[in-house]
Amino acid sequence: MGKTKQELEEVNKVSMVDISGKPETFREATATGTIRLKAETVKLIKEGKIAKGDPVHTAKVAGILAAKRTSTIIPLCHPLPLTNVEVDVTFEDNKTLRVTVKVKTKAATGVEMEALTAASTSLLTIWDMVKQYEKDAEGQYPSTAIENIRVVKKIKKQLRRRIP
Amino acid sequence: MGKTKQELEEVNKVSMVDISGKPETFREATATGTIRLKAETVKLIKEGKIAKGDPVHTAKVAGILAAKRTSTIIPLCHPLPLTNVEVDVTFEDNKTLRVTVKVKTKAATGVEMEALTAASTSLLTIWDMVKQYEKDAEGQYPSTAIENIRVVKKIKKQLRRRIP
Amino acid sequence: MGKTKQELEEVNKVSMVDISGKPETFREATATGTIRLKAETVKLIKEGKIAKGDPVHTAKVAGILAAKRTSTIIPLCHPLPLTNVEVDVTFEDNKTLRVTVKVKTKAATGVEMEALTAASTSLLTIWDMVKQYEKDAEGQYPSTAIENIRVVKKIKKQLRRRIP
Amino acid sequence: MGKTKQELEEVNKVSMVDISGKPETFREATATGTIRLKAETVKLIKEGKIAKGDPVHTAKVAGILAAKRTSTIIPLCHPLPLTNVEVDVTFEDNKTLRVTVKVKTKAATGVEMEALTAASTSLLTIWDMVKQYEKDAEGQYPSTAIENIRVVKKIKKQLRRRIP
Amino acid sequence: MGKTKQELEEVNKVSMVDISGKPETFREATATGTIRLKAETVKLIKEGKIAKGDPVHTAKVAGILAAKRTSTIIPLCHPLPLTNVEVDVTFEDNKTLRVTVKVKTKAATGVEMEALTAASTSLLTIWDMVKQYEKDAEGQYPSTAIENIRVVKKIKKQLRRRIP
Amino acid sequence: MGKTKQELEEVNKVSMVDISGKPETFREATATGTIRLKAETVKLIKEGKIAKGDPVHTAKVAGILAAKRTSTIIPLCHPLPLTNVEVDVTFEDNKTLRVTVKVKTKAATGVEMEALTAASTSLLTIWDMVKQYEKDAEGQYPSTAIENIRVVKKIKKQLRRRIP
Repeated sequence: MGKTKQELEEVNKVSMVDISGKPETFREATATGTIRLKAETVKLIKEGKIAKGDPVHTAKVAGILAAKRTSTIIPLCHPLPLTNVEVDVTFEDNKTLRVTVKVKTKAATGVEMEALTAASTSLLTIWDMVKQYEKDAEGQYPSTAIENIRVVKKIKKQLRRRIP
Repeated sequence: MGKTKQELEEVNKVSMVDISGKPETFREATATGTIRLKAETVKLIKEGKIAKGDPVHTAKVAGILAAKRTSTIIPLCHPLPLTNVEVDVTFEDNKTLRVTVKVKTKAATGVEMEALTAASTSLLTIWDMVKQYEKDAEGQYPSTAIENIRVVKKIKKQLRRRIP
Repeated sequence: MGKTKQELEEVNKVSMVDISGKPETFREATATGTIRLKAETVKLIKEGKIAKGDPVHTAKVAGILAAKRTSTIIPLCHPLPLTNVEVDVTFEDNKTLRVTVKVKTKAATGVEMEALTAASTSLLTIWDMVKQYEKDAEGQYPSTAIENIRVVKKIKKQLRRRIP
Repeated sequence: MGKTKQELEEVNKVSMVDISGKPETFREATATGTIRLKAETVKLIKEGKIAKGDPVHTAKVAGILAAKRTSTIIPLCHPLPLTNVEVDVTFEDNKTLRVTVKVKTKAATGVEMEALTAASTSLLTIWDMVKQYEKDAEGQYPSTAIENIRVVKKIKKQLRRRIP
Repeated sequence: MGKTKQELEEVNKVSMVDISGKPETFREATATGTIRLKAETVKLIKEGKIAKGDPVHTAKVAGILAAKRTSTIIPLCHPLPLTNVEVDVTFEDNKTLRVTVKVKTKAATGVEMEALTAASTSLLTIWDMVKQYEKDAEGQYPSTAIENIRVVKKIKKQLRRRIP
Repeated sequence: MGKTKQELEEVNKVSMVDISGKPETFREATATGTIRLKAETVKLIKEGKIAKGDPVHTAKVAGILAAKRTSTIIPLCHPLPLTNVEVDVTFEDNKTLRVTVKVKTKAATGVEMEALTAASTSLLTIWDMVKQYEKDAEGQYPSTAIENIRVVKKIKKQLRRRIP
């Protein structure tokens, strides 16, 4: 037996949040996450000896580009005029790199998805750069993992009016 | 014999509308269109039995994403900060699904192309999801058709100034 | 009450067709569709007097580009190495333009969605180019419509083996 | 003092793996990851009561689309003709959803980055769909986290030659 | 020996300019560049006899589309709401075509990269359209060259406040 | 007076080269180009003192990504399965950086447009990274220029058949 019209509508609903009536404010969001690698891989990164090139720099470029494409990747995100994207990569311990991304805009909705998308993309890029050192003899990744992607902080401030 | 410089310019002209001097207003556009399928296919959709998954939900996601990419698909469209995209899919009759898309923005130009692009993409997505039921023994589509894509309504309203 | 695990899976299913085991063959698909305009607009197109430039040429370029992006627009389409995209635009009658697109590939699945996506995009591009002539005094489109987008023909041929 | 030419080259190296000489084989990769939400949010998902629509279905569509765009998101990935992408979303426990993605291709290199990119995108999409239930009174996300994104399995098999 | 933390940070820095605090102004940038072809090729273009179609028109469409995608191509560019893109192609001498692109926006940063990206893309498109006439018997391009891509002029004007 | 049907067709023609019947061969193309900067800017690059980060590394990443998107940027390019993209940046003299890009594929058509698109994008990225040092007091670029983008070499080799 088929579903009623109303059941179908419930099941099939997909709807963006309508931000037409919301004022523009200054928005900032910071997201973070880590990637766990072998100690030898982290050592190679620190020594600048990764064959494909520097994972840290490449991860930053990829993260910034991804932040700007968020609304074409995450279906219900609004296209937003990002005013800044900042990606930091630090060595958390001898097996872990941390990516932290801060995104800013003046818009009617927040930018946490942009920060999260950039952080994820930077972490994935690091993985891609060090694949050959992380794979075991069977080509598997027994220890590599991206972990604990979170939103650290969101800020929302009313825009100061400029006197022209 | 070659063309004169002026003839070449006329023939070769491609120019966006310059909206630099136009004020931002609230804009809304609604577009609609239908897809004609076999009665059996529509029955399968209603019963949730399409092998590739639910065409209605998938069509909505695809339509929303397409609306946001309009300015990279339609050459002379301006990039606009869409504030909402709403895609509805309804059963018109036992052989027809209707897609209706409403798009909103605050911008210096209208969003009818965004609504039309989303509606077309949603209809194409439905087609793609039910291909196997619509093809005949020779792999042809004797009866499937997308029909009557139109702009139902455009709205343009001056923005109310907020007192901060 | 929530759904059972199985009900959820049924409702939520979205799955590409797995073409891993299918052989590559030569594939061709032809799609077509029309756009109905005012007679005056069609006359302006024929006379090369559309302010934004030639809709026919622009529609062809947009259609070819869209064919190549199909797998990023239609969710369950496979990325395919298109070997040709051909877009034709003809004057059907004094109020109608017809777009016909032929797409070719050597792949394990057909290219009808590529042809349909290109045809739709070409038709939308024509609409965008002539918007100002089609709108009435209220900014509405009382007569403009994209109609009858169909797959005209699909061809599938085994590849001849070359003797090296 | 500036760097020597060789130091600059070392520091600045970024290079794809050259797969020109590698034969095409059948490749499959499975990646997985989880998202930790509030128990109430997971309950709402199961009951189909999320205001923006069903996160599970939307996550699948977004994941499939992302897999196909991997080589434009991760800088050193090769463009590959994916033959299948399969995204599963399951309820791990009353606070956790698990995304598992299997990607297949016939190519000269593996598809683990495609599987990982799809898994990350599906998890981000779930987050986006349930944002309003996860935020606290200050708009922060004290408990939401994407965790443990890993490659579960990679397969590489020589292609059987077809006798034409 | 590995680098110190500070050395690594210096080497790895990639950062967008933060324009969050900058006011929106009217911005315009004009970029130009030339492509040197064989005299016979330029003659064929003038006579409308290029087999792939008119390079001038196609170059304009490609340039306009590229301008709108600049922030996804050039890593540290901000996404900007372009209000106009104008591409002109002229015959500089019997062996040279000149592309000139003017881009406008209301934004907190300039649009010279958008103008330059559009100009480069238009020039590359011309090259692509005439490849067969430029190649020698060995398939090489002994004389074809894109030359002298420059920013001709940048304008920045405070926005006049409208009295509502 | 309007054009005849045939005149319109001639004027409006845009057509990809049909490569359906061509065999796959190994293809390689090398493109190069230079950017002229101030001597002080080149010194800052060498010293690693550019505020936005290292232009050389960023240019490489941007070039590789652009090569892979060529068929969505240059209208009549075929989508090709690139097997390698290599971007080199060298210091030509105290005012000039040279970008050289080598692209490889196994395909039925050449990759010179991919190499040219990558080279252009890398050069544009360098420009973007050093904008602040190249602008004069009026915000103009009196001396910056991208010059002499050429195809250095194309190679086409029949694929050796592997004995399985």
